[in-house]
Amino acid sequence: MRIGVDAMGGDFAPEATVLGAIQAHREVHSEVRIVLIGNESQIHEILLREGVSSSNFDIVGTTQVINMGDHPTKAFQQKPDSSLAVGFGMLANGDLDGFASAGSTGAMLVGAMYTIKPIPGIIRPGIASFLPISETKTGLLIDSGLNPDASPDVLYQYALLGSIYAKEVFGVTSPTVGLLNIGEEADKGNLVAKSTHQMLKEATSIRFIGNIEANRIFDEDSADVLVCDGFTGNIVLKEAEGFYTLLQRRGISDTFFERFNFEHYGGTPLLGVNAPVIIGHGVSNANAIKNMILQTQKVISAGLVVKIKEALS
Amino acid sequence: MRIGVDAMGGDFAPEATVLGAIQAHREVHSEVRIVLIGNESQIHEILLREGVSSSNFDIVGTTQVINMGDHPTKAFQQKPDSSLAVGFGMLANGDLDGFASAGSTGAMLVGAMYTIKPIPGIIRPGIASFLPISETKTGLLIDSGLNPDASPDVLYQYALLGSIYAKEVFGVTSPTVGLLNIGEEADKGNLVAKSTHQMLKEATSIRFIGNIEANRIFDEDSADVLVCDGFTGNIVLKEAEGFYTLLQRRGISDTFFERFNFEHYGGTPLLGVNAPVIIGHGVSNANAIKNMILQTQKVISAGLVVKIKEALS
Repeated sequence: MRIGVDAMGGDFAPEATVLGAIQAHREVHSEVRIVLIGNESQIHEILLREGVSSSNFDIVGTTQVINMGDHPTKAFQQKPDSSLAVGFGMLANGDLDGFASAGSTGAMLVGAMYTIKPIPGIIRPGIASFLPISETKTGLLIDSGLNPDASPDVLYQYALLGSIYAKEVFGVTSPTVGLLNIGEEADKGNLVAKSTHQMLKEATSIRFIGNIEANRIFDEDSADVLVCDGFTGNIVLKEAEGFYTLLQRRGISDTFFERFNFEHYGGTPLLGVNAPVIIGHGVSNANAIKNMILQTQKVISAGLVVKIKEALS
Repeated sequence: MRIGVDAMGGDFAPEATVLGAIQAHREVHSEVRIVLIGNESQIHEILLREGVSSSNFDIVGTTQVINMGDHPTKAFQQKPDSSLAVGFGMLANGDLDGFASAGSTGAMLVGAMYTIKPIPGIIRPGIASFLPISETKTGLLIDSGLNPDASPDVLYQYALLGSIYAKEVFGVTSPTVGLLNIGEEADKGNLVAKSTHQMLKEATSIRFIGNIEANRIFDEDSADVLVCDGFTGNIVLKEAEGFYTLLQRRGISDTFFERFNFEHYGGTPLLGVNAPVIIGHGVSNANAIKNMILQTQKVISAGLVVKIKEALS
């Protein structure tokens, strides 16, 4: 198994990415090969300084970097030798089994859409984010920002994609699906939520448990998969992030709330495309990068893309 | 000044409402008369038990109650002698200067739309909720659930309504307005947010400070007025409520987070209708009811309806 890592992606790259890869190397399965893509001399320098043999990794040298300020679509054309463009090229060619980056999310989406492309039948891919539910359970929120104007049929597919992820990666036998809404009754919500509710209620391949109001998101009886449009999902996640920051600022430490620390998850999967792609947080430190790589390993091992194709056919 | 209180509204009525009114009576201005509308004998019984003279209040006897399970529109027709219907009737006739209830929000909206009606020029009234921002500042979120599918021109009016409220009731000289969105740039968000951003940017009567992401809602530099559609607003509020519940459940007590306790605010104003209407939380206890009544006094004193009419003309 070959996991590609964008060594130049993220605010603290390549320092954090290479250190994270070194940590991940100690924890991944023996058959995993971590492929570091980026500035070769910088990568070697960090490995040397850390006393880690370069032979532990495959290193693919690139000369360009797509920055946060670059226009996603243009950047891909103007910087063909960037770590992101090369990484997606390798993924599309089958030289990688999965690709992870904490770089520009916009550029990653462009890369995914134009190189590996959406799985046939998928209207719009979505980003799934992790939600800490109670002390041990982790839920999935989909979409967390990719499609701010998602239609009911897109949300229906998100329910399907999320269910497959929860089953294959989290190992939940029969994942429950909830629709994020502003009331429990079927006729509550905006037009998209009302139509989605009807579609989910009639679906036989989805274990729909109804609407979930936002005060129940983190409750024990919340759903394994929480479906919403990307606008709402992004706001839910960022509000939780804001709360976590407030707790830290006020010196409150608590084992449950510590699970809101994104570092533990490392990255969020882009679902509905033809190969495993994991998107890391821009401010990822070495620990977050390590978890991003371990997350990628999990998604590859689960054979998620094949499972999604099967479900759609 | 005559403040009407639905003595039968809320899960703990009439016990909590009458006790709350007794507490409020001690704190309102001397010229305020609290008008209790509901089951006369039950009201008298509680007052007697508490050793409070009935002459402190005006009591308007009613024989019916609109319950949470009642269909809002039908309930108004079928229960003309309910405390809610009588209260709105008095408000429409000018027998009250403002009306507050912790009863069915749906029925209150129906009552407001059909009796006192929206202010001419207002496309859709909205509900403004309070947001604790930093340790001392209180912000306003509008709409918090009334219009899940609000169009940009409705959101534009919410910015105006919120600004007037923040100025006249909170006393903020020149309130800032932010648009809740999923990115800071003008081209971020769903279609409604993008169009609203343009409208707000061009508005001369509104102090627009741009998009606010959800992780900044409770930050010191957040806006005095945060504008969003009712779907998103309701989710933001309920997520905060969920977090507050989690903190309590985990035994974490903190002065800042205590400001997330709705009791302190008592109720949220319905803005854009022809008379002051305050909507209380269904689970209001006596303290919440007291604050709902004090909140109503504030809104009446501020002459909000006149100010809104002036701004629209």
